[in-house]
Amino acid sequence: MYQPAGVKTSPDLPIPNQMKAWVLDDPDHLSLREKPVPVPTRAEVLVRIDAVAICATDLEIIHTGSPASIQGGLPFNKNFTPGHEYMGTVAALGPDVDEFTIGERISVEIHAGCGQCKRCRQGMYTSCLNYGKPEKGHRANGFTTDGGFAEYAVNHINTLARVPDTMSDAEATLVVTAGTSMYGLTELGGLVAGESVVVIGPGPIGLLAVAVAKALGASPVILTGTRNKRLAIGQELGADRVININDEDPVEVVKQLTGIGADYVVECAGSETTINQAIHMTNRGGKICLAAFPHDPVTMDLAHLVKNNIYAYGIRGEGRSATRRAMALMAEKRFDATKIHTHTFPLGDLPTALRYARERVDDAIKVVVTNRQASSIANVAAE
Amino acid sequence: MYQPAGVKTSPDLPIPNQMKAWVLDDPDHLSLREKPVPVPTRAEVLVRIDAVAICATDLEIIHTGSPASIQGGLPFNKNFTPGHEYMGTVAALGPDVDEFTIGERISVEIHAGCGQCKRCRQGMYTSCLNYGKPEKGHRANGFTTDGGFAEYAVNHINTLARVPDTMSDAEATLVVTAGTSMYGLTELGGLVAGESVVVIGPGPIGLLAVAVAKALGASPVILTGTRNKRLAIGQELGADRVININDEDPVEVVKQLTGIGADYVVECAGSETTINQAIHMTNRGGKICLAAFPHDPVTMDLAHLVKNNIYAYGIRGEGRSATRRAMALMAEKRFDATKIHTHTFPLGDLPTALRYARERVDDAIKVVVTNRQASSIANVAAE
Amino acid sequence: MYQPAGVKTSPDLPIPNQMKAWVLDDPDHLSLREKPVPVPTRAEVLVRIDAVAICATDLEIIHTGSPASIQGGLPFNKNFTPGHEYMGTVAALGPDVDEFTIGERISVEIHAGCGQCKRCRQGMYTSCLNYGKPEKGHRANGFTTDGGFAEYAVNHINTLARVPDTMSDAEATLVVTAGTSMYGLTELGGLVAGESVVVIGPGPIGLLAVAVAKALGASPVILTGTRNKRLAIGQELGADRVININDEDPVEVVKQLTGIGADYVVECAGSETTINQAIHMTNRGGKICLAAFPHDPVTMDLAHLVKNNIYAYGIRGEGRSATRRAMALMAEKRFDATKIHTHTFPLGDLPTALRYARERVDDAIKVVVTNRQASSIANVAAE
Amino acid sequence: MYQPAGVKTSPDLPIPNQMKAWVLDDPDHLSLREKPVPVPTRAEVLVRIDAVAICATDLEIIHTGSPASIQGGLPFNKNFTPGHEYMGTVAALGPDVDEFTIGERISVEIHAGCGQCKRCRQGMYTSCLNYGKPEKGHRANGFTTDGGFAEYAVNHINTLARVPDTMSDAEATLVVTAGTSMYGLTELGGLVAGESVVVIGPGPIGLLAVAVAKALGASPVILTGTRNKRLAIGQELGADRVININDEDPVEVVKQLTGIGADYVVECAGSETTINQAIHMTNRGGKICLAAFPHDPVTMDLAHLVKNNIYAYGIRGEGRSATRRAMALMAEKRFDATKIHTHTFPLGDLPTALRYARERVDDAIKVVVTNRQASSIANVAAE
Repeated sequence: MYQPAGVKTSPDLPIPNQMKAWVLDDPDHLSLREKPVPVPTRAEVLVRIDAVAICATDLEIIHTGSPASIQGGLPFNKNFTPGHEYMGTVAALGPDVDEFTIGERISVEIHAGCGQCKRCRQGMYTSCLNYGKPEKGHRANGFTTDGGFAEYAVNHINTLARVPDTMSDAEATLVVTAGTSMYGLTELGGLVAGESVVVIGPGPIGLLAVAVAKALGASPVILTGTRNKRLAIGQELGADRVININDEDPVEVVKQLTGIGADYVVECAGSETTINQAIHMTNRGGKICLAAFPHDPVTMDLAHLVKNNIYAYGIRGEGRSATRRAMALMAEKRFDATKIHTHTFPLGDLPTALRYARERVDDAIKVVVTNRQASSIANVAAE
Repeated sequence: MYQPAGVKTSPDLPIPNQMKAWVLDDPDHLSLREKPVPVPTRAEVLVRIDAVAICATDLEIIHTGSPASIQGGLPFNKNFTPGHEYMGTVAALGPDVDEFTIGERISVEIHAGCGQCKRCRQGMYTSCLNYGKPEKGHRANGFTTDGGFAEYAVNHINTLARVPDTMSDAEATLVVTAGTSMYGLTELGGLVAGESVVVIGPGPIGLLAVAVAKALGASPVILTGTRNKRLAIGQELGADRVININDEDPVEVVKQLTGIGADYVVECAGSETTINQAIHMTNRGGKICLAAFPHDPVTMDLAHLVKNNIYAYGIRGEGRSATRRAMALMAEKRFDATKIHTHTFPLGDLPTALRYARERVDDAIKVVVTNRQASSIANVAAE
Repeated sequence: MYQPAGVKTSPDLPIPNQMKAWVLDDPDHLSLREKPVPVPTRAEVLVRIDAVAICATDLEIIHTGSPASIQGGLPFNKNFTPGHEYMGTVAALGPDVDEFTIGERISVEIHAGCGQCKRCRQGMYTSCLNYGKPEKGHRANGFTTDGGFAEYAVNHINTLARVPDTMSDAEATLVVTAGTSMYGLTELGGLVAGESVVVIGPGPIGLLAVAVAKALGASPVILTGTRNKRLAIGQELGADRVININDEDPVEVVKQLTGIGADYVVECAGSETTINQAIHMTNRGGKICLAAFPHDPVTMDLAHLVKNNIYAYGIRGEGRSATRRAMALMAEKRFDATKIHTHTFPLGDLPTALRYARERVDDAIKVVVTNRQASSIANVAAE
Repeated sequence: MYQPAGVKTSPDLPIPNQMKAWVLDDPDHLSLREKPVPVPTRAEVLVRIDAVAICATDLEIIHTGSPASIQGGLPFNKNFTPGHEYMGTVAALGPDVDEFTIGERISVEIHAGCGQCKRCRQGMYTSCLNYGKPEKGHRANGFTTDGGFAEYAVNHINTLARVPDTMSDAEATLVVTAGTSMYGLTELGGLVAGESVVVIGPGPIGLLAVAVAKALGASPVILTGTRNKRLAIGQELGADRVININDEDPVEVVKQLTGIGADYVVECAGSETTINQAIHMTNRGGKICLAAFPHDPVTMDLAHLVKNNIYAYGIRGEGRSATRRAMALMAEKRFDATKIHTHTFPLGDLPTALRYARERVDDAIKVVVTNRQASSIANVAAE
C-alpha cells in the first residue's frame, strides 16, 4: 500500500502504489502505462483524478511538444503524462498540509509558480520566471510536470478549488477554461458591468468568456465567429448579439451597436484577420485581451492601436486566482458551462476522445474523459 | 486694446487685438499672418507664447495633416496654426479662473479632454472620445485647435504647469516631451526604481525617457539606437549601457545584462525591427510601452508576446498629469533636459527651424523657436 | 413657453416657465413654491423629475444643513431645493448636447465634478476639489445645487444613466443607492467573486450592498444588524448568513464562517461599536469600506488595523461611474432592489413622506415620492 | 566543520558548527549563548551577519514579546534571537539555490511569506495568512524566527537584496528602514513626483520617508515633529519645510503651503494627536499611510475622513519588494541614509547598544551593531 513517509493518507481512500497513466511516446502517440503513484511534498496533495477535459493545447503538446516543453527539451519518450483540465478527489496530504482534507472534491488550475521569483513574488504566478524548473518549485501539470491523463497526480495546494456537491465531475473540469476567461476579463480591469465586451472566436474559452462577461453584468456582450452552431451556443450563454463574420463586417456592427467601439475585446480566435478586427473595433482607451495567437508572425495595424491609446494584454492561462472566482460563479449557477460539454469517454478511450476533439467529430466542443473504467483497470492491476 | 467681456487682463501685460501667427496653407507651406488674439472662456487662460519646440509630429502635421486632423478634414488652408510644445506667460484669465495669475510663466501639455465623455470621466483625458470636437470642450492645441507657432494661444487650465524662475524658456518647452516619457513610464506601472528599463530609439522622447527612468531609480537603464552621437547623449542623460544595434544584437545584450530580459521597454523608434526586438527582449510578465509606430502595418511575433504574458501599451501624448510630474523632476534639476536642445531660432524664422528639425541639419535634435523677434514684429504690426 | 436661447426643446414635451419646487426655509421646514424652470448650459440637460427617493442624508440636510452646505453657508432660507435620488425624463438639451435625446428616461447620480481640478482630472469626481463651487462647474444636486424635490432640475450629462423600459420609475430611483453600494465594492477592488464580504448595517446602502456583492459572485455574503425584519430582507437579497449582533458576536461568527476573517467589509452602520467590529473581523491584508460614520469622534483599535495591514476607504457617494454599473445589473434583473422600497407618496405630500422616512413609520425603508400629482398642480399653476 | 547535506559551502568562507547568538531570556534580558549554525533548505541561504541596526520594534519585542510572538506564545526563554535590520555575506546555499553566490554581500527584508496562502499568492507577502507558522514556510526573522543579533541566520532568497561594493555595512543595514518608507509611498500610489507629501514624526522611518519622497520627486516634502535636531536632519535629507508642532499648527501650515491640503501623509508618530492631524491636513481624495500606531485605542475624526474620501492604509514592514527599490535609490546615492546612523557598537556590546537606542543616549537615532568583535569571540569559542 501507498504510504510514503510524511504523507497523510486515509483508510477510507486506499491508494495503490502503481497507477495507470497515459504517456507521450512519439508525436501524436500515447500509451497507457503503469507508473508509481507520485508523492506530494510540502504544500502539495495527491489528487485522484475523476475527470479530465481535453483542451486544444493538449492536442498541440501531443503533436509538437510546444508551447511549453518539459525540462531538457521536447516531452516525447520521457514518460511524460499530458492533460491539464482535470478534477478529482484529494487522496493524500503532503507534510503539514491542513488546508484540505482527504475526500474533498477539487478542480485544478494549471500553474503553480515557484513562489520565489520576481513575478511570483508580485502575485503573477502564471508568469513565473522559473517556468519549467520543478526543482525551483514550479509546476505546470500537463505542460512541464505530469498531468491529468492518469489515475493520480500531485498538485500544489495553490492550484486547487473546492467543488460543491451540486456540481458534476464533468462540469468541474470546465472550471479551468472558465478560469482562463475570467482571467482575461480580470486583466482587462474586471469592472465590466455596463461595459461593452466583444468576444472573438466561439471556442471553449470564447464561449465561456461570453458567459462570464454576462454574469458580471457586461452589456452588451457581442460574440463573433464563423460557425452559426457555435454562435447559437454563445447566445444561450448570454451573448446579446452574435456576428457571423462571413455575413457581416464585425467592425462596422460593433461600432453601430456601441456608438464608440467596444470597451473590451477578448480575442480568442488568434488569426491575423481577427486580431486586426479587434484593433479596429476597440474604442479609444479601450483594451484587448489576446487569449489566442497564430504561431506565425502577424501583420497588425499597430498605428491604429497606438494612436488610439489601446492596451493589449497577452494572457497565458488563468492567473490571479481567476479559477476560484470562476468556480464561485459556477457554484452559484450564474451560467451553465456544460453547454460547451459535448462528449464523454472513459479514460481508457483517450485516443478516441482526442480524435473527437481534434477533428471536431460530431461538432465536438469540449470532450471529457472520466476515470471510472480506468479505475477498475487500475484496481485489477493493483491486486 | 484686447479686453473681451468676462476676461481678466492686467495693465502690466497689455495685449494687442491682433497677433502674428503662422498658418498652414498647403502641405509643407506656412505663412505668417495676422489673426485676432483668441479669447479664453471658462477654465481657460490666454497664454503669451515665449518659446516653442519643434516635434516630429509637427513636421508630420505640416506635411500630411495627420495624425489628427482638425474638424472637417485636413488642416490645410483653414487658417490653422500648428505647434504644440510651447511655454509662455499667462496673459489673461477666462471667467472665474483663479487657479493662475497673470504674469505667471507656464508650460503646456497638449490634451484638454472634454471632461464629459466616458474616458475623461475616468481620468483618461488623452483618450477623450470627443477628440477633435471643440464644441464638446476638447482641445489639442496644434493638433485640432490652434497651437503655438504664434504670439498667443488659449489653453485650458488643466494643460498648464508652472515654470520655476530657475528654468529657462527653452528648457521649459522640453517639459512636453519629458511628460510624454514620464507618461510612458507611468503606464508601465511607475515603480521603476531597481527595475530594468530599455529605451529603444534615441529621439527626443527616448532620450528623455532615459533621463526620467534614471531619475526615478531604474537600474539598469539601457538605450538602443543606431547613431553613436545620440547614444552618447543618452549616456550623459543616465543610460547605464548603450547599444548600437548595428554593432550588437540588442536582444542578446539585454538578456545578458538583465539575466531574465527587461522588465520594461519603451519603444520610441517605431520600426518593425525594433518593435520585434522589444517583444523579444522583454521578460515574462514584463511590459512594453509603444510610444512610436510605423504608419504601415507591422509584422510582429505576437505569439511570443502572448506566450510570455507581455503587456503592450500604446500611448499617445502625455496623460495622467505626467507633464506636471516631469516638471517636478526638472524643477529639482534631476536631469538636464537641455542636453537635447541643439538649436534656437526666432519665431520669424520658423521655416528655417522646421528645416533644421526635418533634415537634422547639424545633428539637430530639439530645435526651439523663441518669440522675442516675432514679438517686436507683432508690436510694429499692431501699431 | 420655456425656450431659452441655445437650448433644444421638443413640442412633444412642452415645458412651462415656472415649476413647483419644495424649498428649505428654516431647519426641518420646507415650502412648496414656484420657481423658474432652470436652464441647462454646455453638457447639461433639463430633467423632468418623475420620481425621487428619500435618503437619510436628505433628512440630515433638511435638519442641520450638513454634511455639505451650499455656497455661502447653510442652505436655509436661500430658496434651496433638496432631494438627490431622482429619476425622470430628458426634457431639454443644453447647447451641443447630443449624447441624450428628449424623452429618454434617465436616473441620476449626485456628483458632477468641475472637470478641471486635480481630482476630477484623475477621474475622482466625487472628490472634486471645487466641491460647492458651481461657478467652477461643480454640481451636487440636492447638496450644493438645486435637487429633486421639484418638477425639473438641471443635470450634467455625466450624471445620467439610461433607464430601460422594463424598469419602473420607483425602481429607477433606487439606482442612486445601488450605485453607492457598487462604488463601495469598486473601491474595495471590485473582484469580489468567490471572496467573503460582510456588510454591516441593513439600511438601504447596506441591503443593496448585499445584493450587488451577491450579484458579482461574492461568497459568502454576510449581513449584520440588529433588526430581524431588515436582516430577513437582506436574506431575500442574497445574504448567505445574517447575524443579529444582539444575539451573536459578529466577529466570532465571521471568523468561524470564513476561517481567516472577512476579505472585505462594507461598514454602513457608522457606530463606534460596528466600526471596531469591522476592524476585528477583517483578515490580514483585507479591506474595509467606510460608507457611514458617526459625527462624533470614534475610538478605534487602530493598532489592530495597522498590524494587520488592513486598508480603510472612506467613500462619499457613488464615484467611478458605479451608478451606471449598478444600473447594468438592475437592468438585467440580477437583484430586486424594490425589496427595499416600502412606501410611495405624491410630491405634494413630501412632508408626510419625509416623516415616514425619518420616523421609520410602518417599518419604512425607502420612501419614494412621485411627481404625478405635483405635475397636475404645476400644470394648473402654469396656466 | 559545517557541511549539512544538500547545502553548498565554499572553502573561502569556512563556517563553524556553533555560533554566538544573543537569546532572549526574561523580558529585557538577553544572554550571549552558543547555538548551532542554522541550516538553509530550499530557496534559502545562510547569511553571515556583518552588521545589524536596532529598531524600536526590537526594543518592544525584547520588552513585551509583542507585536508578533513566536509560535506557542511569548518569545521569552525559548532560545529566541531577536534582531531584524541586518546585512551580511552569503555563506552557504540551500539545495538548488543559484540566485546568489557565496561571498555576495546582501541586506535583508523581514518577511518571507509562506507562498501558499491567499495573500502570498496575491503578492502581499507581508500580510501572509500563515504568519508565525514556519512549518508552512513563513519566516519573519527577528519576529517569529531567529533574527540578526547573532553570527549567522537563515534567510529566504526572497528577502535578500544585493549590496553594492560602494556601500558600507552600516549603511546597508538602513535599507530595511528605507524599504519600509518606500513601501509606505508605494501603497500611497508611488507616483509622488510633483505631489505634496507630509511626513509626521522624524523617527528613522519618517526621516527616510522624507529622503525617499524627495528622491522620487515629491514637492513639497514637509516634515513635522517636536525635536528641532531631528527636524534639521530631515531638512538635510530633503524636507522643503519642517514644522515643529510645538511652535506651529501643522494643519494650518500644510494647508497654506499646499492650498488644498496634502496629497499624501505618511504618519510615523503614532499618537492620537498626530493621527488626527494627518486626517485634517489631507486633501479631498488624498491618502494617509499609517506606519505607526499607539497600542491603546485612538479617538479619531472618522467623519472628516469619510466625508473627504480619504484613504487610510495600515502598513506593516516593507512589502512589494520595496526594500529592493529603496536599495536601488541608495545604490545610486540619491540620498544619504547614513545621516540617521548615529552610533556603532560591537555585537558583544549589544546591551549597551540597546540602551543607547532605548534611552536615546547622546541623541541616538539609529544604533548599529557590527559583528567583527563578536566574530573573533566566536572564533575563539569554536576552537
